[in-house]
Amino acid sequence: MNSTPTPDVAAWSEGRSRLYEAAIEAFATRGFHATTTRDIAAAAGMSPAALYAHHRTKEELLYVIAMRGHETSLALVRQAIASHDDPVEALRELAHSFAEFHATSHTTARVLNYELAALAPAHRADVDELRHHIDHETRALVQRGVREGAFATPNATMAATAIISLGVDVARWFSEGHHWTAQQVADFYADAALRIVGAVR
Amino acid sequence: MNSTPTPDVAAWSEGRSRLYEAAIEAFATRGFHATTTRDIAAAAGMSPAALYAHHRTKEELLYVIAMRGHETSLALVRQAIASHDDPVEALRELAHSFAEFHATSHTTARVLNYELAALAPAHRADVDELRHHIDHETRALVQRGVREGAFATPNATMAATAIISLGVDVARWFSEGHHWTAQQVADFYADAALRIVGAVR
Repeated sequence: MNSTPTPDVAAWSEGRSRLYEAAIEAFATRGFHATTTRDIAAAAGMSPAALYAHHRTKEELLYVIAMRGHETSLALVRQAIASHDDPVEALRELAHSFAEFHATSHTTARVLNYELAALAPAHRADVDELRHHIDHETRALVQRGVREGAFATPNATMAATAIISLGVDVARWFSEGHHWTAQQVADFYADAALRIVGAVR
Repeated sequence: MNSTPTPDVAAWSEGRSRLYEAAIEAFATRGFHATTTRDIAAAAGMSPAALYAHHRTKEELLYVIAMRGHETSLALVRQAIASHDDPVEALRELAHSFAEFHATSHTTARVLNYELAALAPAHRADVDELRHHIDHETRALVQRGVREGAFATPNATMAATAIISLGVDVARWFSEGHHWTAQQVADFYADAALRIVGAVR
């Protein structure tokens, strides 16, 4: 479905990892449009020619970053859903790991959530497909909890949206040195998610 | 405390309003750093010289936008708190109007929340002071609800953070033409806020 095959993260060279880190930092700090490939190459300690060997455009770089990040998010959601048959425990795990990821990876997550408008339409469609799965699978979990009598909410879809949205926005306000740890935020947010769906103990 | 007096919105000329609208649109679409004062002047149908008569820099323009937006948010929070003695009804009103503002003014709100890093330190401090009041007064309301036995939450500060965060993030995912109206989102979010604080009926 992707117009470019998703790269195998494990196989990435150190130089390539440096390149992605430099691009994430630059996009998060100055925004996609104000960043040049030359800035990114310099920050990664590479020549512009070396960068072009990997990526023809900075949009392609943003695309790879966006796909990786959303694949990680989707994997966390799926792992959480598979972790417990009980929808209460599965949702607790989902909200916890989703919030924790957005706290610990807040710089990457800002790029994933605020720079998507810069993607080419075909690339945006690939990312939106992953986002659709994240939303859809979270919603399906909440709906199952309602059907099984474990949750009580007037709108399972909005409840799922609110839980994902809470997690995403952690990346905006959280940073290292915050007086709360990522773990404390994740613990509170796991409980908040259960409250939002009206989990019945 | 502000280094520039806050402008009187009612006294703004039509040209000035067009200027702010053009700047908000440009900052939201391409980011602050990739926008030039020339772009903004052109979008507002002004000459660059006319723009410079009002603002010497685009940073000053961002500052005025950020102050106006945060003053509006703070006013909504204060009105809600003053609207009811009962903390349940006051928090319902607060979460409702805060979410509704971030849905209906989503383009402005994106600039308010994602472009602040571009402000000069003194201007950032002015905006942060308004943000501090928004957080502090919301937290004080939740704490009062806990003291009065109306709310039950293990952490009033995190609960207040989550309620404000939920409202802010509406600006990221909401847009006109969404299958939910701003009113529907606000209604659900008002209820979600009461659930997060464990409102006891």
